[in-house]
Amino acid sequence: MIKVGIIGGAGYTAGELLRVLAGHPETDVAFVHSTSNAGNSIDSVHKDLVGDIEGDFTDQLNFDVDVLFICSGHGHSRTFVEGNDIPAGVKIIDLSNEYRLKADADGFVYGLPELNLGAIKKATKIANPGCFATAIQLGILPLAANGELNEDVHVNAITGSTGAGQNPSKTSHFSWRNNNVSIYKAFSHQHLGEINQSIQQLQSDYGHEVKFLPVRGNFPRGIFASLYTKCTLSEEEVIEMYREFYKDAAFVHVLDYAPDMKQVVNTNKCLIHVEKHGDTVLVTSCIDNLVKGASGQAVQNMNLMFGLDQKTGLQLKSVGF
Amino acid sequence: MIKVGIIGGAGYTAGELLRVLAGHPETDVAFVHSTSNAGNSIDSVHKDLVGDIEGDFTDQLNFDVDVLFICSGHGHSRTFVEGNDIPAGVKIIDLSNEYRLKADADGFVYGLPELNLGAIKKATKIANPGCFATAIQLGILPLAANGELNEDVHVNAITGSTGAGQNPSKTSHFSWRNNNVSIYKAFSHQHLGEINQSIQQLQSDYGHEVKFLPVRGNFPRGIFASLYTKCTLSEEEVIEMYREFYKDAAFVHVLDYAPDMKQVVNTNKCLIHVEKHGDTVLVTSCIDNLVKGASGQAVQNMNLMFGLDQKTGLQLKSVGF
Amino acid sequence: MIKVGIIGGAGYTAGELLRVLAGHPETDVAFVHSTSNAGNSIDSVHKDLVGDIEGDFTDQLNFDVDVLFICSGHGHSRTFVEGNDIPAGVKIIDLSNEYRLKADADGFVYGLPELNLGAIKKATKIANPGCFATAIQLGILPLAANGELNEDVHVNAITGSTGAGQNPSKTSHFSWRNNNVSIYKAFSHQHLGEINQSIQQLQSDYGHEVKFLPVRGNFPRGIFASLYTKCTLSEEEVIEMYREFYKDAAFVHVLDYAPDMKQVVNTNKCLIHVEKHGDTVLVTSCIDNLVKGASGQAVQNMNLMFGLDQKTGLQLKSVGF
Amino acid sequence: MIKVGIIGGAGYTAGELLRVLAGHPETDVAFVHSTSNAGNSIDSVHKDLVGDIEGDFTDQLNFDVDVLFICSGHGHSRTFVEGNDIPAGVKIIDLSNEYRLKADADGFVYGLPELNLGAIKKATKIANPGCFATAIQLGILPLAANGELNEDVHVNAITGSTGAGQNPSKTSHFSWRNNNVSIYKAFSHQHLGEINQSIQQLQSDYGHEVKFLPVRGNFPRGIFASLYTKCTLSEEEVIEMYREFYKDAAFVHVLDYAPDMKQVVNTNKCLIHVEKHGDTVLVTSCIDNLVKGASGQAVQNMNLMFGLDQKTGLQLKSVGF
Repeated sequence: MIKVGIIGGAGYTAGELLRVLAGHPETDVAFVHSTSNAGNSIDSVHKDLVGDIEGDFTDQLNFDVDVLFICSGHGHSRTFVEGNDIPAGVKIIDLSNEYRLKADADGFVYGLPELNLGAIKKATKIANPGCFATAIQLGILPLAANGELNEDVHVNAITGSTGAGQNPSKTSHFSWRNNNVSIYKAFSHQHLGEINQSIQQLQSDYGHEVKFLPVRGNFPRGIFASLYTKCTLSEEEVIEMYREFYKDAAFVHVLDYAPDMKQVVNTNKCLIHVEKHGDTVLVTSCIDNLVKGASGQAVQNMNLMFGLDQKTGLQLKSVGF
Repeated sequence: MIKVGIIGGAGYTAGELLRVLAGHPETDVAFVHSTSNAGNSIDSVHKDLVGDIEGDFTDQLNFDVDVLFICSGHGHSRTFVEGNDIPAGVKIIDLSNEYRLKADADGFVYGLPELNLGAIKKATKIANPGCFATAIQLGILPLAANGELNEDVHVNAITGSTGAGQNPSKTSHFSWRNNNVSIYKAFSHQHLGEINQSIQQLQSDYGHEVKFLPVRGNFPRGIFASLYTKCTLSEEEVIEMYREFYKDAAFVHVLDYAPDMKQVVNTNKCLIHVEKHGDTVLVTSCIDNLVKGASGQAVQNMNLMFGLDQKTGLQLKSVGF
Repeated sequence: MIKVGIIGGAGYTAGELLRVLAGHPETDVAFVHSTSNAGNSIDSVHKDLVGDIEGDFTDQLNFDVDVLFICSGHGHSRTFVEGNDIPAGVKIIDLSNEYRLKADADGFVYGLPELNLGAIKKATKIANPGCFATAIQLGILPLAANGELNEDVHVNAITGSTGAGQNPSKTSHFSWRNNNVSIYKAFSHQHLGEINQSIQQLQSDYGHEVKFLPVRGNFPRGIFASLYTKCTLSEEEVIEMYREFYKDAAFVHVLDYAPDMKQVVNTNKCLIHVEKHGDTVLVTSCIDNLVKGASGQAVQNMNLMFGLDQKTGLQLKSVGF
Repeated sequence: MIKVGIIGGAGYTAGELLRVLAGHPETDVAFVHSTSNAGNSIDSVHKDLVGDIEGDFTDQLNFDVDVLFICSGHGHSRTFVEGNDIPAGVKIIDLSNEYRLKADADGFVYGLPELNLGAIKKATKIANPGCFATAIQLGILPLAANGELNEDVHVNAITGSTGAGQNPSKTSHFSWRNNNVSIYKAFSHQHLGEINQSIQQLQSDYGHEVKFLPVRGNFPRGIFASLYTKCTLSEEEVIEMYREFYKDAAFVHVLDYAPDMKQVVNTNKCLIHVEKHGDTVLVTSCIDNLVKGASGQAVQNMNLMFGLDQKTGLQLKSVGF
């Protein structure tokens, strides 16, 4: 059994990690660290876990584990890693954005299995990708891998409210968000850094822009991304390229129809559809932002690091409705 | 034109009041008072009012008005009324719960037009009813008026999130409230005081209980209440009693089918349906909590106090969907 | 491995059954029968199952299985059972309402494990309970088991849209149902038969009424039920009675706070809370209507019939949000 | 008073038209025609209109009116117009797509007041624009009017379920649509015809493409559109251009922040925001698809044709939440 420690245990991504690990056959959760909730039972915060998990949050650190998941949120991970004497044998999976860019990586491997499978298997430290970044990269990367990105890529992606975390705010207020839509961080979302980095890794001559409009949706879970760019290949060639790229992927499915977002909610899947319209290739990509976009992908990375089948503990029952 | 001043102008009920008054042909809004937002434009807070209203919030009081609406919230109205030297000629409509009970009324008339029409017309100070209290009373009062309440009344009423105000909180967080249901303040909601007071006003020998379960719904606007009690009258007799009671009511409609809540959203209407099942009479009652349950009813009271037709400015376009 | 056949495979309960069985370690789905969809791939109808299940619907029956789940819907099960020569060794789990009442049972055991555990273990044919019936019985039965039902029980339960099946209709239209609430079948819902039957099984002298108001909610999954009745026991005594009644239950949790519905969505759990208010005991009970209210409970029954741990394949990841 | 006849009275746009006309001070609804609902009361179909409108649907035509609104839906308007001997003095406002393109116009004027104000005032027959077409044109036209469209325009617009009409279908089923997102008719939506026609009217040398992705949203009302293209003007210049273009527009507001969709729900407003990012201008545009996108705009056109102030009867109370 893999002994797991979780840092920053009271937030959304930690909750989702605990939901996934509750059904994982090869892990034991050794401790769930939280300063704000130390002493409270875990299921008093993540209330749907009642009956699935015992025990309390602790403010005591314990490095007698095999892997640490750091769910402290952006701005806290590096402080934690550098401020503690974590034994070399303890693997680390960080869910923040602090080690994703190569310039900051300090030995962390960017944990997108469809891009870096071999490196992840050998890694001891993983920077888990962002949610938008995952949906968008899985939609673009087959083109980049084949050197077929030649123009700007136009991306519109709408996300659920859990993407904004659990702090109550104006834009997470139910009365505001219900039946509402808005955009934010137009063309400047922080995930563009990792997206562009991965494109460069596969197609270093790409000199155009990923133009990304993030949208706030009125649902709690899910990301639905549409991406298009000019492309000289035929529809059949592009589809074949995508099928080839994902032929060994455990969770990515290339469909022959455009998906709807709810097909992936509560799963680690990414559904992809490709179609040509004139000289334009249109890709649809959707994931659950908390699973494939965060904690599910973190477990997928853990599975790879420990030599398990990628799907171990990740064949989750979809919610469907 | 009636010169209107609004106290506590940045909250939900003040916003709704401004929405209604924007289309009212006989009022001028002289000032909107807010300490927290003084100097900000009104449509920077109530953003859907862009183009409908000019001007800024002010922290300056101005009693050169015909009527003051106090929207400061529970716990602030009495402080305001007693702490300021409001001229006797200024009528007051208070939307808090502080003057609703006779013991605390200090000359305020309980502003439920279907109960106190004559008194409201002559009143200078109105305590505007609570939202749940309005839906429930309109469902019960015809029975009380006819001395036909003889047993406990069982009430379940589900309310929209705007009923809880605009402060972000756990139970107003979109991620939590979406697709969720919960109860609170079982059998002890503060509106029971005014409900029981009105029953006593009509049927002073009623010695049983109104058992009221408030429910949090996953919608922003509306209250849907079901009420039942034992009753020896026939269905036809009860229906006739309700029709008679509401024959001059401007906004209450007794339907011959059970309403669904969305029929009243964004209107000042209350829809009522009555049916008998064995010895039990079941009443369904629904309103928009922000309109008939708060600011629309406040304007209805204003209309009555100033001798206008009750419907003036209140024939609001329903949203339907 | 248990060989499973599914009849009526294209509806909601069959889809949910397939979702659950996709992660069940001891079953193989031998065939999924559907006349309307014969020849179509299963994941073309239950689209979230892409990648989880292979194969097509068939219109060929095959009784070389260990268990048949009949998901054909009310009005079709008996026709199927009586019209086919099902071998005696094939266990049957019927999800319709046709065999739930003892008068119609024909050897079917009512499959509520918290009530009939021993009988289910020995059964070859199970009538799987209704969704409302499950939530309400689990809230009432501990009182009945202790002879403590002495007055009418007042029940209000709100259900998700999946409870009405997948046929498009007025009340399942998104434009109508979004942000809406309505009641239906007041005091006359068909599940009252099985509820009363179970009460009589435990407390045969109960001579009062379960007064049940079903409510349509604006969410797809879940049932949230509140139940209350007069009770002379103290709060501590009632809570203790509930804890005792459910001490061996695999999926029922008696909480020390009132649950919210989303805690159980996508799980087989039932969360129960008990509180006293004066002489009234109030019980809250919530389930996922498609899981514990239908297909999850069917699998729980299958587990029991085949000597497996009740939880096998049913430790489902909750959706949380 | 303007005597109004409505053809196709049982659908969504007719219902919305009746909601608007119920508060219009200068109109009388002479008849509401429906073959499917002849003899039924109007408020039995448009149930939120209870108390707002009297009378029944009729299957008798009556051309003794001043204006006919044809709400029969695409594929039925031309049949109606050509199959009936409508007197020359009766003005016609058609809400279908059958007369919008100049090639098919037969004397109908394209009824986008911000584009064709003068022509509408003199028109006797109006082709009312499509909902997406309205939101998108109001976002683009100021650039076209100034000859500043020089590249492809990238449009993503998400619409409410009422845009698909009231026929129950798979994609309008609540269980499916709740918390879901999907695309349809990528780059080929039928509204592109009228959008391109209007662009050509203002900038006839525009030789690039409007690339439009329509998205199904999980809300009943509203359209939220984002549009961007390359532009050499400064942000200040573009904003000034938009303000100038809309300086006399009755319902279009150019904001200094990006709107959220709910600001316009239940109003005839269009909110526009313009920002530059590098060489790209981004425009956000939102409307209520049933009001400014259909029946509200139809009334705006009627007001113009009859010499009324555009805003008559259209200062609708927004829903806000």
